[in-house]
Amino acid sequence: MAENKKLSIIAFSGDFDKLTAVFTLGTGAAAVGYEVNIFFTFWGLDAIKRKQGRSFTGGRSTSGSLCSPKNWLTKLFGFMMGGLKVTPTSRFNFLGAGPKIFRYLMRKNNVATLEELVEAAKALGINLYACEMAMHVLGLKKEDFIPEVKDVLGVASFLKLSEGGQTLFI
Amino acid sequence: MAENKKLSIIAFSGDFDKLTAVFTLGTGAAAVGYEVNIFFTFWGLDAIKRKQGRSFTGGRSTSGSLCSPKNWLTKLFGFMMGGLKVTPTSRFNFLGAGPKIFRYLMRKNNVATLEELVEAAKALGINLYACEMAMHVLGLKKEDFIPEVKDVLGVASFLKLSEGGQTLFI
Amino acid sequence: MAENKKLSIIAFSGDFDKLTAVFTLGTGAAAVGYEVNIFFTFWGLDAIKRKQGRSFTGGRSTSGSLCSPKNWLTKLFGFMMGGLKVTPTSRFNFLGAGPKIFRYLMRKNNVATLEELVEAAKALGINLYACEMAMHVLGLKKEDFIPEVKDVLGVASFLKLSEGGQTLFI
Repeated sequence: MAENKKLSIIAFSGDFDKLTAVFTLGTGAAAVGYEVNIFFTFWGLDAIKRKQGRSFTGGRSTSGSLCSPKNWLTKLFGFMMGGLKVTPTSRFNFLGAGPKIFRYLMRKNNVATLEELVEAAKALGINLYACEMAMHVLGLKKEDFIPEVKDVLGVASFLKLSEGGQTLFI
Repeated sequence: MAENKKLSIIAFSGDFDKLTAVFTLGTGAAAVGYEVNIFFTFWGLDAIKRKQGRSFTGGRSTSGSLCSPKNWLTKLFGFMMGGLKVTPTSRFNFLGAGPKIFRYLMRKNNVATLEELVEAAKALGINLYACEMAMHVLGLKKEDFIPEVKDVLGVASFLKLSEGGQTLFI
Repeated sequence: MAENKKLSIIAFSGDFDKLTAVFTLGTGAAAVGYEVNIFFTFWGLDAIKRKQGRSFTGGRSTSGSLCSPKNWLTKLFGFMMGGLKVTPTSRFNFLGAGPKIFRYLMRKNNVATLEELVEAAKALGINLYACEMAMHVLGLKKEDFIPEVKDVLGVASFLKLSEGGQTLFI
């Protein structure tokens, strides 16, 4: 039973509300003794980017020159995926007003905001992983992420880690 | 084996098609003897609201006056999340025509509609829970929900309930 | 332990990026010896359609004449859900440019494209299933799908198949 207390989350979405769900579930589980693994992939990688706010990260792979479309395109994605501060909500985003309203309501109603939840996740020792394949596609490197990211994993390694527990795709 | 027959669903989405998936899976599982727990959170709370149709529910917390922005904002969310009858589809919504087309096709093809599935869920004794945190954010109270909602739960209690079974995030 | 190595995926979304996640997880798991079951439902059925590109499939049920609105509506859905080649991304779709950019980046960065992943899934013997209920709603028949689709299943049969392993809803 003790070894069953494991929660693994594949954080695919970069939406503010879904990332809030990822970290609420993760910190809630860690707080009652679960081993928690979060595997960030695709848009979810946004949540663990070191440089917050819109910036042209990515596209620095050595396999092409700076002017190749590959590098410009990954930079463009880097700009659009601007980290936690600019994540949209999956519904009622209203050009960015949605997340602001949410943050306001969360603060007023004494609910931890997304940024506080991320801090709590670090403090609770939740294991944060980045998806190797998505990093290749988006031209991101381990240095682009916050230092708390434990490792870069492929699917097989993540499946091995999550074995015997509950796994959610968010 | 017998104790493995448990399906728990975190119903996060308020989309018509995803809620249909929640209730199709839930009733399908309950019909073959599974214990089924559905934990409604964020937009998913829409599915269990007592007052259907757009209305200004929520925002009646005692911690602020009626005119505070907090209360107006939660009322606004209450209006936008108008319950089952006005949920959009996640794709091809066409300003509300999508769900109407779906309902039409479901009726014509003898598939249970979302409302019928919700009724079936109640009849099959599926456990319906509301997420405490999301209720705080959206200013909703237990009285805002249908009486079949068994309890208001936090993450830890839900994880405990879902242990040893399958858990889906929809 | 050996019998635990099972991954079941409910592929609900028809988005290019989410279908990529479905097949990346599926092929990754199958490559390390997992039994993999993918249950396509709603928009996800798009991924296993035989006729790729936009076409008016569906709506050929015998229970109504060709001119009935039911048949026209299912044909319309058939047209809109045009198979893998026209699936949008869940974010940054830009009227279809999003998937093109993704395909370009995947090719340049030596990551398998969605079409290659589907081929790999077939080669690795992943079990592909179609959801009976969604087929009824959308007016699709088994002949509309690629021959690798093993069976048409209801919820109960899928739950039985996925018992004792991990299940994801994507």
